[in-house]
Amino acid sequence: MALSSPQLQRFLATEFNFISNTKNANRNHLTTTTVISARSPCRCSAIAIDAPSSLTDVAGIRWGSTSVQGTREEMEDDLIIRSDGLDGFSFAAVFDGHGGVSSIKFLRDELYKECVTALQGGILLKGGDFNAIKKALTVAFENADKKLLNWLETIGEGDDESGSTATVMLIGNEVLLISHVGDSCVVLSRAGKVEVLTDSHRPYGSNKASLQEIRRIREAGGWIVNGRICGDIAVSRAFGDIRFKTKKNEMLKKGVEESRWSEKFISRVVFNEDLVIASPDTFKVALGSDAEFVLLASDGLWDYIKSSEAVAFVRNQLREHGDVQVACDALAQAALDQGSQDNVSIIIADLGYAAVSTSMIAVIYAAY
Amino acid sequence: MALSSPQLQRFLATEFNFISNTKNANRNHLTTTTVISARSPCRCSAIAIDAPSSLTDVAGIRWGSTSVQGTREEMEDDLIIRSDGLDGFSFAAVFDGHGGVSSIKFLRDELYKECVTALQGGILLKGGDFNAIKKALTVAFENADKKLLNWLETIGEGDDESGSTATVMLIGNEVLLISHVGDSCVVLSRAGKVEVLTDSHRPYGSNKASLQEIRRIREAGGWIVNGRICGDIAVSRAFGDIRFKTKKNEMLKKGVEESRWSEKFISRVVFNEDLVIASPDTFKVALGSDAEFVLLASDGLWDYIKSSEAVAFVRNQLREHGDVQVACDALAQAALDQGSQDNVSIIIADLGYAAVSTSMIAVIYAAY
Repeated sequence: MALSSPQLQRFLATEFNFISNTKNANRNHLTTTTVISARSPCRCSAIAIDAPSSLTDVAGIRWGSTSVQGTREEMEDDLIIRSDGLDGFSFAAVFDGHGGVSSIKFLRDELYKECVTALQGGILLKGGDFNAIKKALTVAFENADKKLLNWLETIGEGDDESGSTATVMLIGNEVLLISHVGDSCVVLSRAGKVEVLTDSHRPYGSNKASLQEIRRIREAGGWIVNGRICGDIAVSRAFGDIRFKTKKNEMLKKGVEESRWSEKFISRVVFNEDLVIASPDTFKVALGSDAEFVLLASDGLWDYIKSSEAVAFVRNQLREHGDVQVACDALAQAALDQGSQDNVSIIIADLGYAAVSTSMIAVIYAAY
Repeated sequence: MALSSPQLQRFLATEFNFISNTKNANRNHLTTTTVISARSPCRCSAIAIDAPSSLTDVAGIRWGSTSVQGTREEMEDDLIIRSDGLDGFSFAAVFDGHGGVSSIKFLRDELYKECVTALQGGILLKGGDFNAIKKALTVAFENADKKLLNWLETIGEGDDESGSTATVMLIGNEVLLISHVGDSCVVLSRAGKVEVLTDSHRPYGSNKASLQEIRRIREAGGWIVNGRICGDIAVSRAFGDIRFKTKKNEMLKKGVEESRWSEKFISRVVFNEDLVIASPDTFKVALGSDAEFVLLASDGLWDYIKSSEAVAFVRNQLREHGDVQVACDALAQAALDQGSQDNVSIIIADLGYAAVSTSMIAVIYAAY
């Protein structure tokens, strides 16, 4: 009288998605276990489980985060994870700075604040209108950048050349939103399969995203030498980097002073737009019952560990001990062990689907 | 065809990190349900479930938070929830300000930063030495207050009289730490039973905590009129409130100018210590498998809704729809409906324990 082995296997294999059609289940027969299928995940309150028919799918996220300096002289990465201010959505971001720490110090809290304001405290996220969300996040990024540029002009005699990438994740019920500038990347593990969710904003390479960036920079009046904008910066979208924005002409003159190019050369340069921009790419990803964890990391990880390896590594860690913080620390260490000499910052959001539930519900059904 | 007992044992004992005494249960009888009790919670990764023998108990917390102004003219509450910087622990705090918003604005980020520094980025939390943690949190609170007082002296011609309570929760695997000053309160729902985890710091009342506060204030040289320190403030521990700390003598003189007391009266006053302090009370609470959610709220809630009612309300909400953010918003609205004219700030941490487990496992056993 009970649960058959294949059924058990199925519970485990399907990772226990919850039942939308339980109402139709015949609770008087063991065979009703067969109607259990993965329609929607159980991300339910431990309490809500008593009333499965009215469950909503709500994540209980376990966060891990690590930011290590490695062998670099300066620590120019930073990260933030907040679960307030956005009407039940969580906000997580990795910043990869360059040219000093001013930009990351400014952005760490300010970008979050701008996002909260632009997203109307999460009302837009709850509303679910992707175009409105995308527009709001663009406004948030661009406002944060304007404020940063103003601030950079006031400090260090106005010659602060720092900048920073930023990759923001917003995680709510069933949905992940990503808005980013720069070359930190986000990957999703779906039942162990890897989905790379972001394209890096770099002024080199032959993929579509890079070619678009190169074209944009050229149309703005810039040029690329050795994969760097004006031979200088290897990331094409970033906050800060004032010399490629409001101080482009000063940058040209400085290049002459430093013999990087001639007066004649710059006499032909006409800038139509900023060369480095902070306008983000924004994506929406549906999180199904097979979405296990999201991994966001700076290029200090991805330049040394492939996305498939990173996902397999984290999965193995979680299988071993279940502690996402330990998994995060171990992955950063693995990148250093692989020879990464960059700062490494990692955020893992273990989506915490109640893998348990289907199996248990199934067993219950088996029992009646 | 059925799941054999050993498999079931493994299923239960491992996936649910379950009970040692199930081994003795007679699985052939319905009556075995009686021996089943939850010893440790299921807070496992959806992935870790495949390797149950090595599971650790890790929370997947679902956060809800609400801060509403109500009918008050000013919004002097604030809150923060962060899951970075503390080695896998989450930090959540409610601030209930008074006399303006300067103190809450300062504290919102600064207290978190001081806690991260004092707790060595979470190393102390992981280490588990409660005395070391308690000491660190005291240092963090006192440092944040010193910095706040310095800052208050620099703004508004040094006459900023703002202050704020702060109740901090640190939630990790199996443990909740609370460090607080003031009258916001934390309650825990254990299988629906209410545990009130904090005593308010108030200069009135006949409970032990209040009597201690009253005694401390008197020993410091202060007096209490109508439940208020020097007839002024109704909370006995808080950040800011510079007139009861570094500017006590100025406060005395101002009282004479405003005819609140006489020169003769203040000639007899000798202050030995500050009247309002920011030294926190710190507690550690073990989170067992029956710990469902933690509810932290400002007195704008508790003055209008009893803890038992609040817990029952949240439980019912979660049973209805499972959405902790909606539950949080609804609870704040309920306080306003009950006539609360104060700001109301609420954080709920749904611990995501498989409260399910006991009841469901019981059914499973019933089936064998």
